[in-house]
Amino acid sequence: MALDPVLRAIVTICILVFSAKVLGEVFSWRKIPSVLGELLAGVLLGPFALGSLIVVNGTSLIQINDIVRAFGEIGGILILFVAGLEMTFRDFRKVGVAGFVIGTVGVIVPFIMGYWLSLALGFGTITALVVGAALVATSISITAVVLQELNQSRKVESRMMISAAVVDDVLGLAILGVIVSFISTSTPITALNVVVIISTSLALWLAMTVFAAIVLPKIINLTSKGSEATVEAAATASCFGASALAAALGLSPIVGAFAAGMAVASSKTIEKIRDYTKKISVIFSPVFFGLAGAQFDVRSFISSDWFFYAFFAALVIVAIISKLIGCGIPAAFFLKDRSKGIKVGVGMISRGEVGLIVAGVAISADAITRSTYAAILGMIMITTVLAPILLRRAYDKEPPEDALTTKEDEANAPDYIPTYPL
Amino acid sequence: MALDPVLRAIVTICILVFSAKVLGEVFSWRKIPSVLGELLAGVLLGPFALGSLIVVNGTSLIQINDIVRAFGEIGGILILFVAGLEMTFRDFRKVGVAGFVIGTVGVIVPFIMGYWLSLALGFGTITALVVGAALVATSISITAVVLQELNQSRKVESRMMISAAVVDDVLGLAILGVIVSFISTSTPITALNVVVIISTSLALWLAMTVFAAIVLPKIINLTSKGSEATVEAAATASCFGASALAAALGLSPIVGAFAAGMAVASSKTIEKIRDYTKKISVIFSPVFFGLAGAQFDVRSFISSDWFFYAFFAALVIVAIISKLIGCGIPAAFFLKDRSKGIKVGVGMISRGEVGLIVAGVAISADAITRSTYAAILGMIMITTVLAPILLRRAYDKEPPEDALTTKEDEANAPDYIPTYPL
Repeated sequence: MALDPVLRAIVTICILVFSAKVLGEVFSWRKIPSVLGELLAGVLLGPFALGSLIVVNGTSLIQINDIVRAFGEIGGILILFVAGLEMTFRDFRKVGVAGFVIGTVGVIVPFIMGYWLSLALGFGTITALVVGAALVATSISITAVVLQELNQSRKVESRMMISAAVVDDVLGLAILGVIVSFISTSTPITALNVVVIISTSLALWLAMTVFAAIVLPKIINLTSKGSEATVEAAATASCFGASALAAALGLSPIVGAFAAGMAVASSKTIEKIRDYTKKISVIFSPVFFGLAGAQFDVRSFISSDWFFYAFFAALVIVAIISKLIGCGIPAAFFLKDRSKGIKVGVGMISRGEVGLIVAGVAISADAITRSTYAAILGMIMITTVLAPILLRRAYDKEPPEDALTTKEDEANAPDYIPTYPL
Repeated sequence: MALDPVLRAIVTICILVFSAKVLGEVFSWRKIPSVLGELLAGVLLGPFALGSLIVVNGTSLIQINDIVRAFGEIGGILILFVAGLEMTFRDFRKVGVAGFVIGTVGVIVPFIMGYWLSLALGFGTITALVVGAALVATSISITAVVLQELNQSRKVESRMMISAAVVDDVLGLAILGVIVSFISTSTPITALNVVVIISTSLALWLAMTVFAAIVLPKIINLTSKGSEATVEAAATASCFGASALAAALGLSPIVGAFAAGMAVASSKTIEKIRDYTKKISVIFSPVFFGLAGAQFDVRSFISSDWFFYAFFAALVIVAIISKLIGCGIPAAFFLKDRSKGIKVGVGMISRGEVGLIVAGVAISADAITRSTYAAILGMIMITTVLAPILLRRAYDKEPPEDALTTKEDEANAPDYIPTYPL
């Protein structure tokens, strides 16, 4: 059974896609976000667990070679493209002042807390930046699904959560872009350099996003008159082209994919493109999450010293506290209601896709150690499981949907509820 | 602009997908099969033409690296999976005696003529086998589309063409499997070995096809109760798993993909799977045809000696004559009408996907030279362009749809008209 690298990759992808789906399915029956199932599939099948044990004719059945890694990287690009597809610029402007403030403060507080925690424990600047960035973005899909299940999704505070989560997604990606610039160019880190890189990155990101928003919808609308699958081909080319352009500009490719998605979202054939992109994600996205899981070294948790456990515990506490403070206090201010403010804070605790991407990019670039990666992944898993439970409890004794919704809230409500292709 | 291999591959795939679609679109407006446009995109962008001239910052923009090649190989697998999806075993049995005889004789005659032509011109046995195999399969999608355009698709002879084309597709793939075994195991070629390998291959193919037909529909039907995208994931796993299994058994992976497609075709959620597979093919299939085109060395045609031109001319003549004889004579016998027999023969002239796959597999394995490859590709292009023109002319003075259709023909008509994701 001598297979060439392509067939080895096909076998690995086949196993990853299928088992990620099976575990995701089992998890979603148990009302646990299915992305955790896909991650677990990666952990179980990875080289640190069963992966190295399943051997056929002397070679391991699951082999993570360059082709599998390419599928994972393309998976990350597609996930961000899909996220961008769910949000036009109009939606983005509609989120309103409250959402913007809650989102921004909810980014600054976790970032600074994570950054200082890591520095205080003796980690380097790059690691501290990665830990801070991984704490920034709420897993909006999980929060949205829970609010829908609780029948609370039209309440004022629920809309604030969604709006703020949009903002922290974008800021999280911008911060990731900055960190990637630091890692790839190994610029000495001074206050001036940070300001320069952050402003250059944001300016480039803005320029590219505006450029994409002007050019791409025209291309897409032009191709929409073509025969079968022409729009789909144009969408693929837009997503891949923008990713490569972002990379060429020194930004992260996924930031380009997100910009392309936002640009394409305002074209006429958006429904067709959404359907298409979700379908092609079926083959790439589980590889992304599978590889994220496969890099999780269970031994970090079993054979670690007290220092690792202390760091991990502190990280989880920071993850919870920082969103409760950073989102809860501004929300309480805007809503003039302490208990509702706490609910917003609780709703924002879950971390997900963006955090995984931050940690995944960092470990692929050797910017963080395997044990830091394991701690971040553990934090994401715990907050993702915890947030729905706490949120459910917070709403437990309340009637579904109250009458507090005003006309003004209605107008400010975003249409944006991203659905990741999980 | 230092991009890693994945991003280089993304740039190349982006350009291939988009330009293949644009040229395919232009061709289909001009009523030329769009697959020729996709091939031409590859020829133009390949390393032997413009590909090496488009240079950004010192590196070629289009780089065919291992990841691009993997996408092409997966594209070939998906094309055959889609072809399999269009045909259940019931359809396969329905094609009737006439279709089976016309298809089989239409395989034997071109194969032997191509094989002897190559041997007579001094080529080796492997090359002769590849040339023979590349002549075997009709491009069923092109014929079917032309018959529909001419409003002749329900006539008796039209049905015979479709049935026979189904049979020659399968036989063409079986022969390819045999040749791949020869190439990969470098078995000495004796009459006994040929018989042994052909029978082993066919037996393995049959066993795998029956196994797939029993197991896969059960898996697919089981997963059809799952949430979004579970069936799609199971279909992907079936296709990839069967390809790898075929490769492990020493067959060609695409034969496995075809068997998996046929097996899945009888499941309940076939429409969903068809839609999904066509969508994911958008990203892979142009890479397959693009790479097929990119390997076409225009210089073979410009700077070649008289020997090449003689071989090429003879190959095109053999391609036309062999199907006219091999399909036309049995068809005239079954239809008891010489002019209709000729029409069937003309309709079967066009070669396409299977021929490309045969030639592509052979050149990837270094089993044929670049100039032989160019001659085969040229033959495919000429027959594909010629067949619709000749067929149109043959039907020119006839009324659309006659009343010759009998009840019996109706019952024997196959539902199978494969639509390749072009």
